[in-house]
Amino acid sequence: MNSGAGLPAVIDYDRENNTITIIDQTRLPMDLVLKDLKTIDDVYLAIKNLEVRGAPAIGLVAAYGLVLYAHTIRTDDRLFFWGQMRGAATYLKSARPTAVNLSRDVDMVMSAFQRLAGAPVDKIINDIEFCTGLLKSAIKAAEEAIGRTGASLLEDGDLVMTHCNAGVLATGGAKGTALAPIYRAREEGKTVSVIACETRPVLQGMRLTAFELAKNQVPVRLITDSMAGICMKTEPIKGIFVGADRITANGDVANKIGTYSLAVLAQAHGIPFYVCAPTSTIDLSLETGSLIPIEERDPGELTQLWFEENMQVPDVTYYNPAFDVTPYELVTGGIITEHGFWKPGASHG
Amino acid sequence: MNSGAGLPAVIDYDRENNTITIIDQTRLPMDLVLKDLKTIDDVYLAIKNLEVRGAPAIGLVAAYGLVLYAHTIRTDDRLFFWGQMRGAATYLKSARPTAVNLSRDVDMVMSAFQRLAGAPVDKIINDIEFCTGLLKSAIKAAEEAIGRTGASLLEDGDLVMTHCNAGVLATGGAKGTALAPIYRAREEGKTVSVIACETRPVLQGMRLTAFELAKNQVPVRLITDSMAGICMKTEPIKGIFVGADRITANGDVANKIGTYSLAVLAQAHGIPFYVCAPTSTIDLSLETGSLIPIEERDPGELTQLWFEENMQVPDVTYYNPAFDVTPYELVTGGIITEHGFWKPGASHG
Repeated sequence: MNSGAGLPAVIDYDRENNTITIIDQTRLPMDLVLKDLKTIDDVYLAIKNLEVRGAPAIGLVAAYGLVLYAHTIRTDDRLFFWGQMRGAATYLKSARPTAVNLSRDVDMVMSAFQRLAGAPVDKIINDIEFCTGLLKSAIKAAEEAIGRTGASLLEDGDLVMTHCNAGVLATGGAKGTALAPIYRAREEGKTVSVIACETRPVLQGMRLTAFELAKNQVPVRLITDSMAGICMKTEPIKGIFVGADRITANGDVANKIGTYSLAVLAQAHGIPFYVCAPTSTIDLSLETGSLIPIEERDPGELTQLWFEENMQVPDVTYYNPAFDVTPYELVTGGIITEHGFWKPGASHG
Repeated sequence: MNSGAGLPAVIDYDRENNTITIIDQTRLPMDLVLKDLKTIDDVYLAIKNLEVRGAPAIGLVAAYGLVLYAHTIRTDDRLFFWGQMRGAATYLKSARPTAVNLSRDVDMVMSAFQRLAGAPVDKIINDIEFCTGLLKSAIKAAEEAIGRTGASLLEDGDLVMTHCNAGVLATGGAKGTALAPIYRAREEGKTVSVIACETRPVLQGMRLTAFELAKNQVPVRLITDSMAGICMKTEPIKGIFVGADRITANGDVANKIGTYSLAVLAQAHGIPFYVCAPTSTIDLSLETGSLIPIEERDPGELTQLWFEENMQVPDVTYYNPAFDVTPYELVTGGIITEHGFWKPGASHG
C-alpha cells in the first residue's frame, strides 16, 4: 500500500506525462480531490496555498517539482540548465520560507550539480530524479521502522490518542510518523482505535487525521482539544502518539500547539506519551527547547475558523503560537525514530 | 452599573411598555444588537434560539416573560387567568427542558398562585412582578458577594485565566460569577488581565467572554483551549476562575467541557483553581460528581464550527459531551459562593 488502502497517493509523480498528482488538502474533509501539477508554478502554488502541507510532504513535492521542471528545459547547455534550475529552486523554497524540510530537500536534490560537475544535462536530470526517489524511499523506510517499534507497544483492541496530523497526509510516505504504529498494528492484525484531537486553530485533527484514519478503516473518534483531559480520565487510553517539528539535543520536543497540554495531562493520568519522528527531525545544534523561537501566526486563524466569517473584535488581543515545546521529562513513553528509541546524549543516524 | 460600563443590560424589562429588551447573543461578537421581546412567543424563541443563554439568565428572562404575559391577559376571572398563566409557564419551560434554573425560576414565580389563593388578579400580577424583581436582586447580590471574596485574592496587575462564559451575559446580573472577582477588582482600582479560553465547541469564550470583557475595558487575550497548558507554563497566571453548572455534596464540580483539563493543568503548574457559583448551584441531593449524567450534544456543534459548512465525514465518530466533572481535590483555590468559601460537609445558605 502507498498510503493506506483507502486513500490515493498523497503525492505521486507520473514520469511518462511528467505530472505530479496530489490530494488537494484544502478540500478535505468535505471533498477528496486529486489535482495535477504540470508546471513549476503549479507546484509553488500547491505549497503556498497549503494544498500540500506537513514538513516532509512539502519537501517531497518540491523535489518532484524540480524533477518535473528539469524535464521541461529542452537544452544541452549545462550553464543555462543550471541557471534555470537554480531559479526554480529559489522560487520553490520561497513558497513557505520557514519550512526547514523544504529548503533542505531542495538543496539535497540540487546537490546533483556539485556531485556531477561537468556531466551532461541528461545525466544531471537522471541524478535529480534518482535523489528524489531516494528521498521518498527514505521517508517510507523511516515510517515503516517507526511503525514496527511503535506497533510492538500495542495490542489488539487498544485505544490511543493523537494530535494534529502526523499521518500519511503530512509526509507523503507510507504510514506517517505518529500514525505509523497504528497502521503497522493493523497490518499485524491488531485493531487499534484512535481518539483524534481536532487541533485548533487550523483543525488538522478534524480535517485530516480523522479523515485519513476513517479512509483506512481505522476506528476514530474526533474530540475537541478541551475534551482530552476527561477522555484520559474515563477511557482506557494506552498511549498518546504525536509527531514532532523539531527535537533538541536534550530531547525537548517542539510540535503543534496543544502538544504540551496533552503531555502534562498524560503524565497526570499515568498514560505514556510517545513522540514519533525520523532522526532528521533531531536538531543537535540546539541544546534545549527554550532556544526554539515560538512562531506566532495570524489571529485570523483563531477567529475565522477556516471559513468566511471573522469573529475578531476590537480591543481583544489574540494569541496564536503555532507550536509549543514539551520538555523531554514529559515524553514518558520515549522518542521513537527509525532506529528505535532515541535518548538525549545518544548519537543518532 | 448594570452589566459593566460598556455593555447595555443583558435583560431589561420596561414596565411602561411591557417590553423585555435583551442583547441578542447569537449576533455576538460581530454585532451588538438589542432585541425587544413583546410576546410570550418572543420570549420562548429567545430562549430556544440561544439569544439568551446561561442558566441564570434563562431563568430570569422566563420570569420576566411571565410578568409580560400576565399584563396582557385582560381579565378579572381568576380561574381563566390561572389557566392562561399555567399554559405560559409550561410553554416557557419547554424551550430548554434540561435547564434547571428555567424550571425552578418559573415555578418560583408561579408560586404566587399558592401564596395568594383567592386574591384578585391584580394582586397576583403584582406578586409575580415582585418575585421576579427579587430573583434579579438575588442574582445581583450573590454576584456582588462572590466578587468581593474573589477580588480579595487579586492584586493590581494580576493575570487570571477563565473558561466558557460565566460573566454578565450568562446571568443577566451585575458581574457574572467567574468574572465577578475581576469586575470587582476593577472597581477597587486594581487592573486584572484575563486570558480567555475560546471554549470549543460552542466558542462561548471567543464569542462572549472576550467580547464582554473588552466592552468593559478589561484587558483580555483570547487563546484556543489547546494553548492553556503552555500559557500556564510561560505566563504568571495568578489563578483560574470558572463557573459551575452543578456542584455535588462532596464538592465535585460539573461545568463546561474543558474545565477538568484546566484543573489538572493548573494543579501541575501550581496555580490555584477557583470555582465561583451561587449556593443555588450546590445540589446536596447528589453525593458525588460521578452521579451527574454527562449530556452528549449534536456532533454538528463540533463540525459546523458555528457557521454554515459542515466538516462531518462518514465513518468518523464524533464525541460531544457538553460538560465534564472536576473532582473537588482539583479545586485547589476553593469554591467561592455569596457566603464566602464553601466546603463539602458544610451547610449552605
